[in-house]
Amino acid sequence: MDEQSTVWQHTEISDLDTAAVAGVDAWWRAANYLSVGQIYLLDNPLLRRELTREDVKPRLLGHWGTTPGLNFLYAHLNRAITERATQAMYITGPGHGGPGLVANSYLEGTYTETYPDISGDEEGLRKLFRQFSFPGGIPSHVAPETPGSIHEGGELGYALSHAYGAAFDNPDLLVATVVGDGEAETGPLATGWHGNKFLNPATDGVVLPILHLNGYKIANPTVLARIPEDELVALMRGYGYTPHLFTGGFDDEPVEEVHRRFARVLDEVLNEIAEIKAAAARGRTERPAWPMIVFRTPKGWTCPDTIDGRRTEDSWRAHQVPLASARDTPEHLTVLRRWMESYRPEELFDEGGSLRPEVAALAPDGDLRMSASPHTNGGLLLRDLRMPDFRDFAVDVPTPGGAIGEPTKVLGQWLAEVVRRNPDNFRVFGPDETASNRLQAVYEATDKQWNAGYLPTDAEDDHLAPSGRVMEVLSEHQCQGWLEGYLLTGRHGVFSCYEAFIHIVDSMFNQHAKWLDSCNDIAWRQPVASLNYLLSSHVWRQDHNGFSHQDPGFLDHVLNKKAEIVRVYLPPDTNTLLSTYDHCLRSRNYVNVVVAGKQPGPQLLTMDQAIAHCTRGLGIWEWAGTEVAGEDPDVVLACAGDIPTLEVLAAADLLRQHLPQLRVRVVNVVDLMRLQDEKEHPHGLSDRDFDTIFTTTAPVVFAFHGYPWLIHRLTYRRHAHPNLHVRGYKEEGTTTTPFDMVMLNDLDRYHLVMDVIDRVPGLGSRAAGLRQQMADARLAARRWTREHGDDIPAVRDWVWPDAGDALDTSGQQGTVSTGGDNE
Amino acid sequence: MDEQSTVWQHTEISDLDTAAVAGVDAWWRAANYLSVGQIYLLDNPLLRRELTREDVKPRLLGHWGTTPGLNFLYAHLNRAITERATQAMYITGPGHGGPGLVANSYLEGTYTETYPDISGDEEGLRKLFRQFSFPGGIPSHVAPETPGSIHEGGELGYALSHAYGAAFDNPDLLVATVVGDGEAETGPLATGWHGNKFLNPATDGVVLPILHLNGYKIANPTVLARIPEDELVALMRGYGYTPHLFTGGFDDEPVEEVHRRFARVLDEVLNEIAEIKAAAARGRTERPAWPMIVFRTPKGWTCPDTIDGRRTEDSWRAHQVPLASARDTPEHLTVLRRWMESYRPEELFDEGGSLRPEVAALAPDGDLRMSASPHTNGGLLLRDLRMPDFRDFAVDVPTPGGAIGEPTKVLGQWLAEVVRRNPDNFRVFGPDETASNRLQAVYEATDKQWNAGYLPTDAEDDHLAPSGRVMEVLSEHQCQGWLEGYLLTGRHGVFSCYEAFIHIVDSMFNQHAKWLDSCNDIAWRQPVASLNYLLSSHVWRQDHNGFSHQDPGFLDHVLNKKAEIVRVYLPPDTNTLLSTYDHCLRSRNYVNVVVAGKQPGPQLLTMDQAIAHCTRGLGIWEWAGTEVAGEDPDVVLACAGDIPTLEVLAAADLLRQHLPQLRVRVVNVVDLMRLQDEKEHPHGLSDRDFDTIFTTTAPVVFAFHGYPWLIHRLTYRRHAHPNLHVRGYKEEGTTTTPFDMVMLNDLDRYHLVMDVIDRVPGLGSRAAGLRQQMADARLAARRWTREHGDDIPAVRDWVWPDAGDALDTSGQQGTVSTGGDNE
Repeated sequence: MDEQSTVWQHTEISDLDTAAVAGVDAWWRAANYLSVGQIYLLDNPLLRRELTREDVKPRLLGHWGTTPGLNFLYAHLNRAITERATQAMYITGPGHGGPGLVANSYLEGTYTETYPDISGDEEGLRKLFRQFSFPGGIPSHVAPETPGSIHEGGELGYALSHAYGAAFDNPDLLVATVVGDGEAETGPLATGWHGNKFLNPATDGVVLPILHLNGYKIANPTVLARIPEDELVALMRGYGYTPHLFTGGFDDEPVEEVHRRFARVLDEVLNEIAEIKAAAARGRTERPAWPMIVFRTPKGWTCPDTIDGRRTEDSWRAHQVPLASARDTPEHLTVLRRWMESYRPEELFDEGGSLRPEVAALAPDGDLRMSASPHTNGGLLLRDLRMPDFRDFAVDVPTPGGAIGEPTKVLGQWLAEVVRRNPDNFRVFGPDETASNRLQAVYEATDKQWNAGYLPTDAEDDHLAPSGRVMEVLSEHQCQGWLEGYLLTGRHGVFSCYEAFIHIVDSMFNQHAKWLDSCNDIAWRQPVASLNYLLSSHVWRQDHNGFSHQDPGFLDHVLNKKAEIVRVYLPPDTNTLLSTYDHCLRSRNYVNVVVAGKQPGPQLLTMDQAIAHCTRGLGIWEWAGTEVAGEDPDVVLACAGDIPTLEVLAAADLLRQHLPQLRVRVVNVVDLMRLQDEKEHPHGLSDRDFDTIFTTTAPVVFAFHGYPWLIHRLTYRRHAHPNLHVRGYKEEGTTTTPFDMVMLNDLDRYHLVMDVIDRVPGLGSRAAGLRQQMADARLAARRWTREHGDDIPAVRDWVWPDAGDALDTSGQQGTVSTGGDNE
Repeated sequence: MDEQSTVWQHTEISDLDTAAVAGVDAWWRAANYLSVGQIYLLDNPLLRRELTREDVKPRLLGHWGTTPGLNFLYAHLNRAITERATQAMYITGPGHGGPGLVANSYLEGTYTETYPDISGDEEGLRKLFRQFSFPGGIPSHVAPETPGSIHEGGELGYALSHAYGAAFDNPDLLVATVVGDGEAETGPLATGWHGNKFLNPATDGVVLPILHLNGYKIANPTVLARIPEDELVALMRGYGYTPHLFTGGFDDEPVEEVHRRFARVLDEVLNEIAEIKAAAARGRTERPAWPMIVFRTPKGWTCPDTIDGRRTEDSWRAHQVPLASARDTPEHLTVLRRWMESYRPEELFDEGGSLRPEVAALAPDGDLRMSASPHTNGGLLLRDLRMPDFRDFAVDVPTPGGAIGEPTKVLGQWLAEVVRRNPDNFRVFGPDETASNRLQAVYEATDKQWNAGYLPTDAEDDHLAPSGRVMEVLSEHQCQGWLEGYLLTGRHGVFSCYEAFIHIVDSMFNQHAKWLDSCNDIAWRQPVASLNYLLSSHVWRQDHNGFSHQDPGFLDHVLNKKAEIVRVYLPPDTNTLLSTYDHCLRSRNYVNVVVAGKQPGPQLLTMDQAIAHCTRGLGIWEWAGTEVAGEDPDVVLACAGDIPTLEVLAAADLLRQHLPQLRVRVVNVVDLMRLQDEKEHPHGLSDRDFDTIFTTTAPVVFAFHGYPWLIHRLTYRRHAHPNLHVRGYKEEGTTTTPFDMVMLNDLDRYHLVMDVIDRVPGLGSRAAGLRQQMADARLAARRWTREHGDDIPAVRDWVWPDAGDALDTSGQQGTVSTGGDNE
């Protein structure tokens, strides 16, 4: 028997026998008991003495509503996992179910293995209860602290995206994914169902969505719980699934019968999965209608029917803490005790408070326990990428500016080689923009994975295939969620996106950064690969699309998160981009944001220079300035980003021509974090180094890719800060040629020269004349553009003065794109 | 015949006669011709002379792919609108179809009425073509500049949310909404279909979704175009619609027949709508299965089949500019000319270049033209709200801190009265959080509009009704999109949201702010009501939920947009919140962000004081400080936000007790924009006023609600900036009691006192002793929390020292909540 058939077993379905039912039910009761205990109790965990006011937490903080359903599913999955030896993990869409997932991992023994102080006895139970949502304890959600989780679930919407991400390239993994009916109303979840169109049944794992209809959100019913069943079934079929309906807990049906019915549903579903897997192994490539479960149970199932005469079970009142005044009124304390006793703890725990072996027996073995799955602590499985030497992809730069090139296009060639060398643990994600961002060379090495359907004969389906390393769907949410799931289960990836639209996943980035931040304090969480963004099609080149496609603010957003987590790079040319990205793919536990242009532009540094420059993160470009060795410059022209670098170089060229006596220093910043204080960020430059580069006295004119105040925010403590004048994007966008765009935002070469003249004292009349000349040149450029619909040739065809010969030799000067972005 | 039946006519369906077909086809050809012309031509608009290289734009910037389908639909809708006298508007999900929408509004005459320079003759055509996506011209998308649009469509996903927002409370309006099949893959769009569960067929308008399957995105096929038809039909039925399928343009079917078939589909759909409307008028309340259209046509329909031997029509190659080298190669120039001639311009325009009357005849009359619908220039329809006097809702504040209250709860009472007085043009939107954010008093005045389904007898369906002013769906995207649609069609509203999760709509906010910014430069766009956020359940009180629910960064995000558009307020108590919100609801064309706590807290200002304070935006609280009149203070304690204000007051109290000789000034900031330079923001304080309040010499310890560097960013040019020390949120979050949380971020009273001691020189040994005392008090507070699970009583029960008597009298002191947020 090969491994495949071991993992995806088809079993004969028969009703569970009494012992099996009792086993599942005992587990469920134990998990529920432990969940209630965590929410309410400080002490007296086994109710071995009278429950008193002092046993109850003074602040009751947590959520009960979703928990019993999660526990029920966990118990049943355990039964099936054990029977079929299935590798499985559990994604808890309703993150509020934290106490339930902690309870299950405690019952499986994982919790005590991970946190020995939470021992398998009464003292351990006391600590388990006390620590929950308690100062100095653990969070109330399914958090990084929870063994078996890759999904916090506090911000709703990403359960299915994370699940599909976890399943890619894990052909033997079952990802049981509970989707709350509240979460199901979110946009990201609503499109998350379509993950099945991008899954290969042979080479990827299985996502089993379980739509948990418990009817209510915080204060309202849910949409999917209220639409007629035929609509719900149509919706699931429309999403491409085969729905299996289960309803339990609403009437007086004996609980044994409820268990038997659900066990049958689960077995049917797992058999369908086994059949699909077997067919895929035989070579079936069409997309199957994967099964999913609609699991309808009462909210707060098994809690008191009513409290103070108001319905609680099966009501939104069960969402959070149903007995909020358990400590304050003796009646409620009695209700709480009876509620906990209803789980018959004496049958579950022995005298010493240890779980009775007959209950513990439901837990699968070792790594098959969902709470112990190594996939949920992906760093355990993480393999280093086999990396092609990026230096082999260097563009030849005979002299600064002596070549024209498209940075992301070359990066694509290198990524193609990364793909070739890492055929099962590296993927490129993008919202239909991989080629638009000029990474198309990856298609020489792989295809776009696509399983939504093929036309009978469509020669136009370029590089679509059932299996491939590139994932393209027009949903930034899906790209981000898939990549997160992929990374957290121990693989590597890149997300390439239009710069403006990465804001669509601002909040997902927040949650991932918070996850990584928390993991830095959790010793058993092994480091995972960094989340790497490539933001191309950026603010300065939206010639086709204009204002709505211009927003460089993701950088500001990212920098609000912990310095230990975030890195921002703005490589100005191809070789610096290659060097930067090599570094990113090797890093761990970061979010790396790389902004890089895709348009043809001057290539500035040789590979050796680029490596040195990127290692320093920022540096003086002596070749571009007019400094005198050993003397401070009159002015510093600083830049970060490809377009600002181009404009600064052009400004330096103008200054050199017209004010040759002016000592100009040109500084380029690749690693934005270097600007920060070393106390604020690990990459931060020391004040001494900062002062050496920017001086403490010379005016600094800084041309920046993004919003100008970001530079101020990063440098406000620097000695040079009062001398700093920043040009950047100012939300002025409605124009269609590159130079008109920079002029509109006063970031252009002419304006930079004027900035210099305005700030360097004592330049005299020649400078005044030059200032007027620059103003005239701007006007002329503007007029030209409006008349001709293109940038004035003097600007469009400008090259760094020392580069001309090299360019003529290389013959590349003619490579001028008329277009901007592709979208 | 009453108005209802005039608007929603049921007509007999018969095949269009030849003249009618010719009319629709001529319009379509004209719109297509004008669209192609806009993308390509600088001159020679009617091809009256040989087409030369110089007639073609040097940079071809725009999108053809979606345009012909949009034009086809527009033509057919015009035919139906004229026949039925339907008020309609057109929402173009694929915003790339800009040339098409400009073309149709030109054909309808609206464009020339709006922009007389674009006249109805050859010269006007020349200018129309030239200005498109040209420097100094108009954007390539369906932009604010486009008459008839409320939807830019550059960032995809919001077509249906905008459409439902426009339809609410517009019972006579048909919102024809084209959803691109690329857009359909996004999350917001995928949940946007569920808007039908929140629409009342009697009191709201009609959304007619038209899913435009043209098969391809930028570089890939689309999911919905490739899944089997039975799945697609199931999906639409699952979303609650009755799908009508139409396919056209793929074979040699005569175009007349294509028109006839589509006209029949559209008539059937409009008849179904009329029937639903009639039933609703008769009192039918159940949710109907509204019709929708699946419109399958080739991408780039009517463009050349192939270019250079590669398929273009019906391919992703038609997405943008199919003939990118029309100017460069004579062959392509010929292809372009033939393509344009295929629309037979000589039949469409007369000698002078005016549209022939027989073509123009398809346009509906006056305001019935979709491009002239007043709903699409909502300011035209905007009525001021009837405003209750917020002073009537003032809480009694006998002395600062002399009352305890929950600000948003009182705001809810005032909003209830706003609802009562404005029963058809004001709505409150929220992701299941209206009650959680303590606005539940609105339910005394109205219900939550809900049409997803009711249980036969569910007493728990609190305040759900087929019609109501509160819109609750667990999707921030839907809330934001609905509200935007509602505002842009001339109504008013509030979006209440958890602070952390408002980041979910960061990018939607961007697009709305850009829309408003553009409108400020478009004279004919009348001002619309501001978009008002109420961010409660904020970062400092996430006791139930912890780290994932903590993020104050929306303020940073908002401040990246134009100063003319954005306003941020942090009212510290109830009366300031009321005064602030009254101002917000009266304002126009802004985005107002108000952050306000929902937890019980000290009430500080009487209503008169609050009004004065909010009018100034920031001010010195003499009652809280220990200044000597006429002298500069030794230190300034500044605060913005309710929790920082509480901690600053407590710190001021400690300083007053322990260092009574220290002259402390307390400054509170409500309007964050006041901190900015007056040159940067219209609300900005002059340097003189700023210096008067903050001094230029005293240390300033600033306790801020959000990330501390935001204050630096706003004040870096101020003279006081070098003296500024800011405490705020630092991404330290995993704890569960309020004071533990502020301690974790060093924003607590003890730390603030230590900050003061560290910064005021010459305080001597008494201060050193106090510093140690504060450090000890912190440790004790931390230890207490960890032991008891609650904050130390000295902190929890602290009140402003002069407030004690008043509090005892009011008897409210006992109101201490044990919980945090509700979610």
